[in-house]
Amino acid sequence: MDLKEILISVKQGHLDIDTALSKLKTLPFEDIGYAKVDHHRSIRNGYPEVIYGEGKTDEQIAGIIEKMMEKGSNILATRIKKETYDYLKNIYPSIQYEELARIIKIENKKIEKVGKGKILVLTGGTCDIPVAEEAYHTAEFLGNDVEKIYDVGVAGIHRLFNNMDKIMSARVIIAVAGMEGALPSVVGGLVDVPVIAVPTSVGYGANFKGLSSLLTMLNSCASGISVVNIDNGFGAGYLASMINKL
Amino acid sequence: MDLKEILISVKQGHLDIDTALSKLKTLPFEDIGYAKVDHHRSIRNGYPEVIYGEGKTDEQIAGIIEKMMEKGSNILATRIKKETYDYLKNIYPSIQYEELARIIKIENKKIEKVGKGKILVLTGGTCDIPVAEEAYHTAEFLGNDVEKIYDVGVAGIHRLFNNMDKIMSARVIIAVAGMEGALPSVVGGLVDVPVIAVPTSVGYGANFKGLSSLLTMLNSCASGISVVNIDNGFGAGYLASMINKL
Amino acid sequence: MDLKEILISVKQGHLDIDTALSKLKTLPFEDIGYAKVDHHRSIRNGYPEVIYGEGKTDEQIAGIIEKMMEKGSNILATRIKKETYDYLKNIYPSIQYEELARIIKIENKKIEKVGKGKILVLTGGTCDIPVAEEAYHTAEFLGNDVEKIYDVGVAGIHRLFNNMDKIMSARVIIAVAGMEGALPSVVGGLVDVPVIAVPTSVGYGANFKGLSSLLTMLNSCASGISVVNIDNGFGAGYLASMINKL
Amino acid sequence: MDLKEILISVKQGHLDIDTALSKLKTLPFEDIGYAKVDHHRSIRNGYPEVIYGEGKTDEQIAGIIEKMMEKGSNILATRIKKETYDYLKNIYPSIQYEELARIIKIENKKIEKVGKGKILVLTGGTCDIPVAEEAYHTAEFLGNDVEKIYDVGVAGIHRLFNNMDKIMSARVIIAVAGMEGALPSVVGGLVDVPVIAVPTSVGYGANFKGLSSLLTMLNSCASGISVVNIDNGFGAGYLASMINKL
Amino acid sequence: MDLKEILISVKQGHLDIDTALSKLKTLPFEDIGYAKVDHHRSIRNGYPEVIYGEGKTDEQIAGIIEKMMEKGSNILATRIKKETYDYLKNIYPSIQYEELARIIKIENKKIEKVGKGKILVLTGGTCDIPVAEEAYHTAEFLGNDVEKIYDVGVAGIHRLFNNMDKIMSARVIIAVAGMEGALPSVVGGLVDVPVIAVPTSVGYGANFKGLSSLLTMLNSCASGISVVNIDNGFGAGYLASMINKL
Amino acid sequence: MDLKEILISVKQGHLDIDTALSKLKTLPFEDIGYAKVDHHRSIRNGYPEVIYGEGKTDEQIAGIIEKMMEKGSNILATRIKKETYDYLKNIYPSIQYEELARIIKIENKKIEKVGKGKILVLTGGTCDIPVAEEAYHTAEFLGNDVEKIYDVGVAGIHRLFNNMDKIMSARVIIAVAGMEGALPSVVGGLVDVPVIAVPTSVGYGANFKGLSSLLTMLNSCASGISVVNIDNGFGAGYLASMINKL
Amino acid sequence: MDLKEILISVKQGHLDIDTALSKLKTLPFEDIGYAKVDHHRSIRNGYPEVIYGEGKTDEQIAGIIEKMMEKGSNILATRIKKETYDYLKNIYPSIQYEELARIIKIENKKIEKVGKGKILVLTGGTCDIPVAEEAYHTAEFLGNDVEKIYDVGVAGIHRLFNNMDKIMSARVIIAVAGMEGALPSVVGGLVDVPVIAVPTSVGYGANFKGLSSLLTMLNSCASGISVVNIDNGFGAGYLASMINKL
Amino acid sequence: MDLKEILISVKQGHLDIDTALSKLKTLPFEDIGYAKVDHHRSIRNGYPEVIYGEGKTDEQIAGIIEKMMEKGSNILATRIKKETYDYLKNIYPSIQYEELARIIKIENKKIEKVGKGKILVLTGGTCDIPVAEEAYHTAEFLGNDVEKIYDVGVAGIHRLFNNMDKIMSARVIIAVAGMEGALPSVVGGLVDVPVIAVPTSVGYGANFKGLSSLLTMLNSCASGISVVNIDNGFGAGYLASMINKL
Repeated sequence: MDLKEILISVKQGHLDIDTALSKLKTLPFEDIGYAKVDHHRSIRNGYPEVIYGEGKTDEQIAGIIEKMMEKGSNILATRIKKETYDYLKNIYPSIQYEELARIIKIENKKIEKVGKGKILVLTGGTCDIPVAEEAYHTAEFLGNDVEKIYDVGVAGIHRLFNNMDKIMSARVIIAVAGMEGALPSVVGGLVDVPVIAVPTSVGYGANFKGLSSLLTMLNSCASGISVVNIDNGFGAGYLASMINKL
Repeated sequence: MDLKEILISVKQGHLDIDTALSKLKTLPFEDIGYAKVDHHRSIRNGYPEVIYGEGKTDEQIAGIIEKMMEKGSNILATRIKKETYDYLKNIYPSIQYEELARIIKIENKKIEKVGKGKILVLTGGTCDIPVAEEAYHTAEFLGNDVEKIYDVGVAGIHRLFNNMDKIMSARVIIAVAGMEGALPSVVGGLVDVPVIAVPTSVGYGANFKGLSSLLTMLNSCASGISVVNIDNGFGAGYLASMINKL
Repeated sequence: MDLKEILISVKQGHLDIDTALSKLKTLPFEDIGYAKVDHHRSIRNGYPEVIYGEGKTDEQIAGIIEKMMEKGSNILATRIKKETYDYLKNIYPSIQYEELARIIKIENKKIEKVGKGKILVLTGGTCDIPVAEEAYHTAEFLGNDVEKIYDVGVAGIHRLFNNMDKIMSARVIIAVAGMEGALPSVVGGLVDVPVIAVPTSVGYGANFKGLSSLLTMLNSCASGISVVNIDNGFGAGYLASMINKL
Repeated sequence: MDLKEILISVKQGHLDIDTALSKLKTLPFEDIGYAKVDHHRSIRNGYPEVIYGEGKTDEQIAGIIEKMMEKGSNILATRIKKETYDYLKNIYPSIQYEELARIIKIENKKIEKVGKGKILVLTGGTCDIPVAEEAYHTAEFLGNDVEKIYDVGVAGIHRLFNNMDKIMSARVIIAVAGMEGALPSVVGGLVDVPVIAVPTSVGYGANFKGLSSLLTMLNSCASGISVVNIDNGFGAGYLASMINKL
Repeated sequence: MDLKEILISVKQGHLDIDTALSKLKTLPFEDIGYAKVDHHRSIRNGYPEVIYGEGKTDEQIAGIIEKMMEKGSNILATRIKKETYDYLKNIYPSIQYEELARIIKIENKKIEKVGKGKILVLTGGTCDIPVAEEAYHTAEFLGNDVEKIYDVGVAGIHRLFNNMDKIMSARVIIAVAGMEGALPSVVGGLVDVPVIAVPTSVGYGANFKGLSSLLTMLNSCASGISVVNIDNGFGAGYLASMINKL
Repeated sequence: MDLKEILISVKQGHLDIDTALSKLKTLPFEDIGYAKVDHHRSIRNGYPEVIYGEGKTDEQIAGIIEKMMEKGSNILATRIKKETYDYLKNIYPSIQYEELARIIKIENKKIEKVGKGKILVLTGGTCDIPVAEEAYHTAEFLGNDVEKIYDVGVAGIHRLFNNMDKIMSARVIIAVAGMEGALPSVVGGLVDVPVIAVPTSVGYGANFKGLSSLLTMLNSCASGISVVNIDNGFGAGYLASMINKL
Repeated sequence: MDLKEILISVKQGHLDIDTALSKLKTLPFEDIGYAKVDHHRSIRNGYPEVIYGEGKTDEQIAGIIEKMMEKGSNILATRIKKETYDYLKNIYPSIQYEELARIIKIENKKIEKVGKGKILVLTGGTCDIPVAEEAYHTAEFLGNDVEKIYDVGVAGIHRLFNNMDKIMSARVIIAVAGMEGALPSVVGGLVDVPVIAVPTSVGYGANFKGLSSLLTMLNSCASGISVVNIDNGFGAGYLASMINKL
Repeated sequence: MDLKEILISVKQGHLDIDTALSKLKTLPFEDIGYAKVDHHRSIRNGYPEVIYGEGKTDEQIAGIIEKMMEKGSNILATRIKKETYDYLKNIYPSIQYEELARIIKIENKKIEKVGKGKILVLTGGTCDIPVAEEAYHTAEFLGNDVEKIYDVGVAGIHRLFNNMDKIMSARVIIAVAGMEGALPSVVGGLVDVPVIAVPTSVGYGANFKGLSSLLTMLNSCASGISVVNIDNGFGAGYLASMINKL
C-alpha cells in the first residue's frame, strides 16, 4: 500500500485517520516521494550498476551480477582480480575485463554518450597507470569520450607541454600522480577547467602509502583543483562523468 | 618585439634567421603564444583578480590593489582582517567588506552571470559559517547564483531533509563541515550533481585541526564527491564556479 | 497544516488526492511523524536545552538563551568564559555559573531526577578536574545523583582503593584522565558497570594534546569501557545520564 | 589460612598479634575480601568465560577451554580461525562456530536472558559485517535479544530510514562503520539511547587502517555516542550487554 | 582504628569475628600494611616532597606548601614561574629559586647524601640547558653529587671528547638533547653505565616539538639507554637519583 | 707499533719527532688509550658478545660466531629463528635456544653473577611474553638473578597485588606491556626502584604497532620510569643488568 | 618542420605570417630550443640511461633496455630482483648485476671519469649496506671514484675515527643510516664538504619505517647536510655525482 | 704543553714514558692533531662565525659577538628580531641588519669570493621570501654571487620559464616553497646542477606546518635534489656555498 493508496482509502472511508497516521509513520521512506531518495542512482536507465569488488568472494560477485542482469542494465565492477574474471567469464561469456584497471564490464545495452566534452586522464609516471586506467574505463563506461596521456610528470615538464593542445581541449581533467604528486598543480595552473586530482600510493620511503601526494594535492596553489581518496580512480572517473554531463 | 613582429621582420628581411632563432629562444614564454600559458586567468576580461591576504601587510595589499585598479577589473581579496578593510576603505571608498567571510570586493564593472545553474552552500554547524561564507561570496563574485543553507549537520538530519527541494535543484553543491565531517557523504548520496567537500578546522580534541573531517570526506562512500583543503572556502567557491560555467 | 489535518481534509473531501500528495512531499520532515525525528531531544519536557559556547559571541549566546527562555525549559551552556557569564548575569539574574566546569545553568523548572542510580566521576590527577567538572555538572543538571572522587590516578593506586566502596556502588562511572590515561583500565577491571573514559589534553611532551591518553583508553584490555573525545566532559556526562535513565 | 581463620586464631590465642599482622600483610590480596577484586567477573555464575584467540596456538586454546569446562560455565572465544575450530571440534563436539564473527561458543548451561531490552547492531556497509557479527554473537551469548540491520550507510540514507521502527525500539545501539564512519552520528541524532560506535579498518587510501572512521566517531556532534577500538566488535557487544542489564 | 587495634580487639574479645572481617574490608588500604602502598614515597623521612607546578595557581601552590611545611620535610616544586616565586618568597622567606630550571626548593633539614657515585648531566646545545638544569637540581636536591657539562652535541664531537674523563667517571649519565637528539647514542657507546636520555622540544621545522629527538633516542643502537618524556628533566633527575642510591 | 712503543722509540732516538707526530695522528684511535673507547665492551672478560640476528643470513651469523668462539667468550644472539638455530646446532652442538625469546646462547665459560640484587620481569598479558622472555634471558645471561611474573595487567589488578612481595623485593623491574601499556605506571607507583618500561606491538586497531603503549609509558605520572623501544626486550634486559651491577 | 625551417619558409615567402604563427603555437615544445628542456639529460653522450625497476615486469624492462641499446648509451637499472637479472641475462649477455645493490649495469662504452674528487659512502650499520651499495654503484657508474666504509655508526664512535683520513680526503660524503640516524650529524661536524644523508628503513619499533632516521637527519645541528628520501641510495649517488662534477 | 712538546720532553728525558702516556690520554682531543677535529670550521680565517639567535637573550648574543670581535672574523647571526638588532646597533655600530631575512652581519674584513659560480635562490610564492632571504644573505656573506627570483611557483609555470636563462646559468640552485612544494621537482627536471629544496611552513589546513611541502620534496621524481629542514634557509645557503666552493 503506497502513499496514494493510503490517501484514497482515507478519502473513501476504508481507513480511519489513526490507522492512516500509523501507516504513514511506518511506510518505507522510499514511498514518500522524494524522487532522489527513493530511486537510487544505479537503478535508472542507461546508467551502469557498480560493484566494489574488494573483499567480496567470487560467488558473492556472481550473485550480485545475477540480480543485476535481470534488470538488463549495464554493469561495472572495480577491484576485480584476474582469477575472479576467469571465474565469472564461464558464467557470463559477454563479460569484458580491463586487466590494468582491474575492471569488469558487461554491456547489456549500448552505452549512451552523455558527456558533453572530452575527459582527459593524465599520469605523472608509469606506475600510476593502473589507477588512471580505473578512472579511464569508469568514465568511458559512463558515456564519455575519454583520452589519456601517461607519464607526463613535472620532473620532465617538456613531456607535458608536448601535449598542450590535448590538455587545452579537455572539458574535465583527471590528474593521477604518486611520488611528489605535483602534476595537478602544474596542470591546474594551465587550464580553465576542473582538475580532479588522484593521489596514488606509488612511491617509497617518505611517501607513506600516498600520504605525501595526497597532502601535496590538497595544498595546491592552483585554483580549480579538488582531490579524491588515494588510488580512487573510480571516484575520479565517476565525478568527472558527473561534471561532464552538466 | 613580439612573436608576430619577429616573423614580419624575418619576412621583410630586417632580421636574419639566426638572430630570429635566438630571439625566439629568449623571448618571454608568454609571447610564444600558448593561449592559456601566456594569458593568466586573472587578467582576462570579466574575471576578478584574486589576492590571498594572509601574511601580507596592509601596505602590500593596497599596492597590489592599486596596480589592479589600473586594469579596471573586478577585485577579490580573501583572508582580510577588519583592520585591513578599515585601512583600505580610506583609499578605495568603493570597497565592500564581507566580515564573516573576511572577503574584500571591488566591483569596477558589473559582474556578468556566467554560471548556468545554482550553486548551493551547506554547512554542518554554525561554526562552519565563516568558511562557507568565503565560498559563498567567492562563487557569487565569480558570476553565479548562490544559495546557502547553514546548520544542517547529520546529527539532526531532519534539518537537512527539510531543505530537500533546494538541495535537489542545485547544479553544484559545496558542503562545509568540521567535527565529524559527514555532511558531504549524506548529501552525495542524495543528489546527482558534483559535491565539493570542505573540511573545517572547527572542533576540539581528536579533531586535530581539521584532520578528522578531512579524512572523513576523503573516505566517503558516496560517489561524486571531491575534497579541497581544510578551511579552503575560496577554493571550493572557485571550483564550483568553474564547474557551473560548463 | 500538519499530517493529521491533511488526512482529515482528505477524508472530508476538502483536499483532493494530488494536492494532498504534493503537500505531504513538501511538508517539513518533522511533520511526517517519526517521533524522534521531528521532535528534537532538547525541546522535550524536563530536558535542558544545551548550548555549545565555544566560538560564539556573548551576544549570540544571549540571543539563543532568549529564545530558549520563552519555552520555559532549563538551559545548560558549556565552554563559557567568566566574562561571558558576567555579561549574561546582567540580563538573566537567575543564571548560575560553575567556574571550573565553565558551565552556565538556568533552572526554569525544578530538575526532575531521572537517573536510577549513582553516576561517579573520577579523575587521575588534579589537572583533569575542569573536564571532570563539566561531566559532573552536565550529569547533575540532567537529573542524576552524581558523586566525584578526584586525583586517584594509577601511579598511587592506594588512593583508588581507599574509595572502593563508592566505586563499587556506582551505576555508571566516568573516568577522566590525561598523561598516561590508565585510570579507566584499572577501574574497568574492578567493576561490572559501564565505564565512560574521557581523555584529557593534560600533560606535556609526548602527550601530544591528549593523543596519548586517547590511545591508551581505546586500547584498554578491560571490558565495558568506551571512549569519548578528548576533553569532552559534556559528552561523557550526557551519555552517562542516558545510560542511567535506562 | 584465610582471613577469617586468622581472626579466629587470634581470638583463640593460637596466634599472637605480630604474627597475625605479618600474615595479613603477605596474604594474597584476593583473600582480604574486596568482593569485586578477588572474584573476577568471568568466574561468576551464568556469565560465559571469554578467550581472546589472537596469537594463541590451537593447543593453548584447547588447554584453556579444558580448564574452563571443569567449572561448567559457558565459553566464548573470539578471533578464532576456521582451522582452529576444526581442531577443537574433535575434542569438544558440542562446540559451535560462527564463521563470519570468527567466534566459538560452548553452551554448558542454558543462556539466561539478562538484557532488559533489545540491542540493535547496524553496519554502514557489507564489509563491516564480520566486526558486527562479533558484536552480535557476543551480545547474544551474554543473554540479550539482539537484532541486526546491515548495509545502511549514510551515503544511501533511505536504507536507514526504512528501518526506523527497529531503530526506535532498541535499548542500546551498536553502529559499526568503516570508510567515513558517519553512521553513528546520524543514528545518534535520531535516538535517545546510548550508541556504541565501532570503527572498522575497512576502506583504502586515506582510511589509514581505521583511523579515519575512528576520528569521525570521536568527533561526532551527536550526543550519547562513545567509541571502542577499531574492529573491536567484542568490546561493543560486551559493553552493550552491560548497559542492557541495567 | 588501625589494623593492629582491630586484631587486639578481636583477641580481647571486644570485637566479634564478623565485625572484624567487615572492618578489614572497608579499612583504608594504607592501613593494611603493604609498606610501599600505604606509605607514599614522599612522606618518608629525608625525601623531599615534590609539587608539579604547571597549571596550578599561586594560591594552590602556597596551600600545598603550607601542608608540607607542617611535616618538616624538604620541598621541591617544578615548572614554577618567576612571578610565582616572587609571590611565595613573601610567605616562605627560606625559599630558593633556580631560575633556569624553574625549580623552587625549601630545605627544612639538611639534605642527606644518598647517592653513591656521581651523576653527570650533559646537553647537546645551549637551548637544552633549562631542561638539563631541572634534572640537575632535582638530582642534587635528592641527595646526589651532580656535575654538568653543557653544549657538547655530536655535531662538534671534539667538545665531547675533551670531557672524556668526567664522562668516564660518572655512575649515571643524563643526556639531554633536542634537534637530532644523537648525544645519548654517542655517549652510550662510550660508557658502561646507565644513560637516561631526555629529548627536548628545542628545534624547528621537522622537529615537531621534540618528536624527532624522542624517536632518535628510542631507536639508539647503543645499549644501556632508556628514555623519559620530552622535556622531562625532573623525571630524569629522579630516576638517576633512584639508580644512584642502589 | 702502539702508543707506548712510539714513546720509547722517541726516547731512544730511533724515531724523530716529526715522524712520531705523524704516526700519532694516523694511529688508530683505539691505540691512544681512552680505556672505554679503544676497548669495546663486548671484548672484555666475562661479558658475552651480542649478535643482533634480524636481517642476517644463517651463514653470516655462523661466521660471526666462529670469530667470537676463538676468543672463548660467551655468546648471545637475539631475534634468531628456529630454522637458524637448527642450522647452527649442527656446527656448534653446545648452542642453546630459548624459543619464546628467540635467543641463542653459547656458554664457553661459567656465567659470573655480577648483579647485586634481583631483576623482576613483569608482563601485562600473555601476548607480551616473547618480548619479556628476551629481556629475561638477556639479563640472566649477563649474570643476574631474574624472576618473572606474567599476565598481571592492570585490567585485573588483583593479579598484580597477589605478587606484591616479589615486586617489593626486586632491585630493578622490567615491565612489559602492549595494549594500553599501563602496567609500568601502576608498578612505578608502588616501588622505590627503577622501572624499565617496554612497550610491545601487541594489540589491534588503534594500537598502531605499539605506538599506543609507547606513548602511555612516556607519559607515566609515576616517577622512576624510563622507556626503551617498542618490543626491545634485549635493551631492557641489558639496561637492567647494567643498573643491577651498580 | 622545425623552428628554423619555419623561419626560412617565412623569409622565402612560402609561409604566410598567420600560418607561421599558428604552427609555432602547436610546435612541440622541445623544438623551440630551450636546450635543457628539449634535450633530456639521459639522452646525452656519456651519461647512462636510468630505469627505475620497481613495479615493472621483466618484459617491460627488457623492452625499455632494447630501445636504449639502440642509442648505444650505458644503462643503469635500479631495484632489480635477482630473477629479473636472470631473465635479462639471457637476452643481453653483457649485463652485470650488483646483487646487494639490486642494480643492473650495461656498459656499452667505457665510463668516462667525470668526478673531480672522491665520493665516500659510509653506513651506520651492516643492515644499511644494501642502500649504500645502491649509492655506491650509481656514483661509480656515473664516472666517479667511490670509496666505502661500512658499519661505523655513532654508538661505537672509535670505528669512525679509525677512518678519519679517508673521511677527511673525500670531496662528497654519502652517510647512510637507519635506527637513530645520527651518523650524518657527527660526520658533518668533522668535515668541510657536502654530506648527503640517506635515512634507511632499517630498525624496529618506533623507527616507523625510516621516519625516525629521516627526522634525525633533517634536524641535524651540523651545517652542510641535506637529506634524500628514505632508502633512496640512487638519489644520493646521483646527487653526489652531480656535485662531484662541479 | 702540546703534543710536540710532550714528544720533545720524552726525547730529552725530561718526561718519563708513563707520565707521557698519561698526559697523552688526558690531553684535550683537539691537541692530538686530527686537523678537522681540533680546528672547528668557524675559527678559520675568512669564514664568518655563525650565531643561531633563536632562544638567546640580547645580552647573550652581545656577549658572544664580543668574543668573536676579538678574533676579527666576520660574524653572521640568524633568527634575530628587529629589537635585538636595535639593541646591538648601539654596541656595534658597524652591524648590518637584513630585516626580511632576520640576519645580522658584521664585516670585519672584506668578504672573499670563494664561490666559483652563481647560486640562484627561487621561491614558489611571496610568503616564502623570508626563508629565501635567509638563504640568500647566508650564501652571499659566505662569499658567493647570489641571484634571486621570487614567486615563480608551479601553479603559474610560465613565470618560471620566463627566467629560464638565469636558471640554466646557475651552478647551485636553492628552491624554497611552501604549500604543495612542487617547485624543486620542476626545476630539478630542467637543470643539471644540484638543487637544494627548502620546505617552508607557509600554507594552511593540511599543510601541517610544512609537513606537506617537506614530504613533496623528499618524494621528488627528479634526480639531483636534496632537502633541508623546514624553514631552514640558513642551512640551504650554507650547503650551497660549500658546494659552490668545490
